[in-house]
Amino acid sequence: MATIAVPRVVPSPAEDAAALLKAFQGWGTDEQAVIGILAHRDATQREQIALEYEHKYGESLVQRLQSELTGDFERAVYHWMLGPAERQAVMANAATECLQEECAVIVEIACANSSAELVAVKKAYHALYRRSLEEDVAARATAGNLRSLLLALVSTYRYDGADSVDMELARSEAKAVHEAVRDGGGAGGHEELIRVVGTRSKAQLRATFGCFKDEHRRSVAKALPRGTDPTGYLRALRAAVRCVADPSKYFAKVLRSATRESAGTDEDSLARVVLLHAEKDDMGAICAAFLKRASCTLEQAVAKETSGDYRSFLLALLGS
Amino acid sequence: MATIAVPRVVPSPAEDAAALLKAFQGWGTDEQAVIGILAHRDATQREQIALEYEHKYGESLVQRLQSELTGDFERAVYHWMLGPAERQAVMANAATECLQEECAVIVEIACANSSAELVAVKKAYHALYRRSLEEDVAARATAGNLRSLLLALVSTYRYDGADSVDMELARSEAKAVHEAVRDGGGAGGHEELIRVVGTRSKAQLRATFGCFKDEHRRSVAKALPRGTDPTGYLRALRAAVRCVADPSKYFAKVLRSATRESAGTDEDSLARVVLLHAEKDDMGAICAAFLKRASCTLEQAVAKETSGDYRSFLLALLGS
Repeated sequence: MATIAVPRVVPSPAEDAAALLKAFQGWGTDEQAVIGILAHRDATQREQIALEYEHKYGESLVQRLQSELTGDFERAVYHWMLGPAERQAVMANAATECLQEECAVIVEIACANSSAELVAVKKAYHALYRRSLEEDVAARATAGNLRSLLLALVSTYRYDGADSVDMELARSEAKAVHEAVRDGGGAGGHEELIRVVGTRSKAQLRATFGCFKDEHRRSVAKALPRGTDPTGYLRALRAAVRCVADPSKYFAKVLRSATRESAGTDEDSLARVVLLHAEKDDMGAICAAFLKRASCTLEQAVAKETSGDYRSFLLALLGS
Repeated sequence: MATIAVPRVVPSPAEDAAALLKAFQGWGTDEQAVIGILAHRDATQREQIALEYEHKYGESLVQRLQSELTGDFERAVYHWMLGPAERQAVMANAATECLQEECAVIVEIACANSSAELVAVKKAYHALYRRSLEEDVAARATAGNLRSLLLALVSTYRYDGADSVDMELARSEAKAVHEAVRDGGGAGGHEELIRVVGTRSKAQLRATFGCFKDEHRRSVAKALPRGTDPTGYLRALRAAVRCVADPSKYFAKVLRSATRESAGTDEDSLARVVLLHAEKDDMGAICAAFLKRASCTLEQAVAKETSGDYRSFLLALLGS
């Protein structure tokens, strides 16, 4: 269930474009009006509004929004105005600039999309940057396990039918996973682990992780060594395993860390998860998993940790 | 320019289906009639004939063809009746069964298709085998450079615009290629070489190979060490480099080796190249490159090296 609330009777794109122009005019911007419109339109409607606005007023709506708004709010609205594939391509490209810190962004885009959606993101990446996501990940990561893992995840076109789980294979690959886990972050078994995580279908991987848990009484993510991880590889691997095993739980965990008071709010992760999922079917399950984990609703956490128009915008996307 | 010759006035699918049924009936099969129809219809027309045949006569045309025909001819007609994406998926799947010997099939499918065509092949692979091409290549190849290379080639979604060649990058990556080449088949520099060949756009790679040739006065393919190659890696790498650098010349070379008298005809390679290209625009250029290399036409070579209905069929596909 998506969380954005589109009104039953939606104004025409021309009416919305006119209302936005009005919000931009005069002394200061009427941010609440901007939120009142854009946070309550789906991707197709937003695209039509932008087309109508440009056609009628001879300027780009996105550029005008960027000049009218500021800070986190501006950035969130800019991302929101992109189509789902472009938005992820832009986020992925930014993440390739500092892959070690931002590897989770790449992992999420590679693992939470269906194979067809991932191809759409990669197509959008071609159009925007005239390069492939693969070559940027490969060229900008230092050689080693982190690069092998991220490259495998973004490259692969996984089978995504749920109908073809091979339990014998799951048992044998759970052993390969165990050998790599026991080995820490060393090179040895990790080539096999990366092969498994990077090529098998998600349904098959869930079966493999299930066999691992049955055998070793803890999840693969929990079994991975903690502590020093200078290359970021183990962090990326843990994210990939969690994101494949249970995406709602994974994203709830990302949101929980992002909104935890002690560490200061992680605006990037918060906005990323909300913007990428607010109009997708999985947002309801993410909110439910968050509530279970955090003993407060996601809206409460967001309201507490953010402020101003940015807060109003995120809360509107969450359906408040 | 495709070589198959479709008549100006094409009979209706119903007429073709009836003519095929007639060819199957009576004492023995009228193979010439089968060739006269199927070798002169394009992919869409063949699909319509098969649908019409099944609808009208209550049996699968492909199965009937398989029971009526034999040997190389049967196999070629079977492949021909598949759509272009399915045909390549079937050939790729067979190649994953003996990757070391058949690595060229994987390389060609990965390197000669556009990115969109490769995704179509991988989608067809999912539908046919309920697994991904990536996982079969990864699981069936022994770990090492051959696996890394083949997996990178089939996985990547290359940028395929020709508009974005970075000459500085080409020069620096030509150096990385040179280091790997100097190194032989060892592991060291080959991780970088596989990254370059596996992720960059074909236009960028051609620029890199050009820089290499300017600097070292021979092509990358020629500079790769010859001789013992137990893993098949150098063979696969040479094929990939050649197929990216100049596909027509590469396929002409494959056809030349396949039809050379001394070694006996390599039916698989011959049929593969003819079947995959006869209705594609590049077949004309492949024939021209063959003539230049072999000092006889491809038709002459095929006529000399094959026989019977199989020969008639291949020659019909080549436009004779």
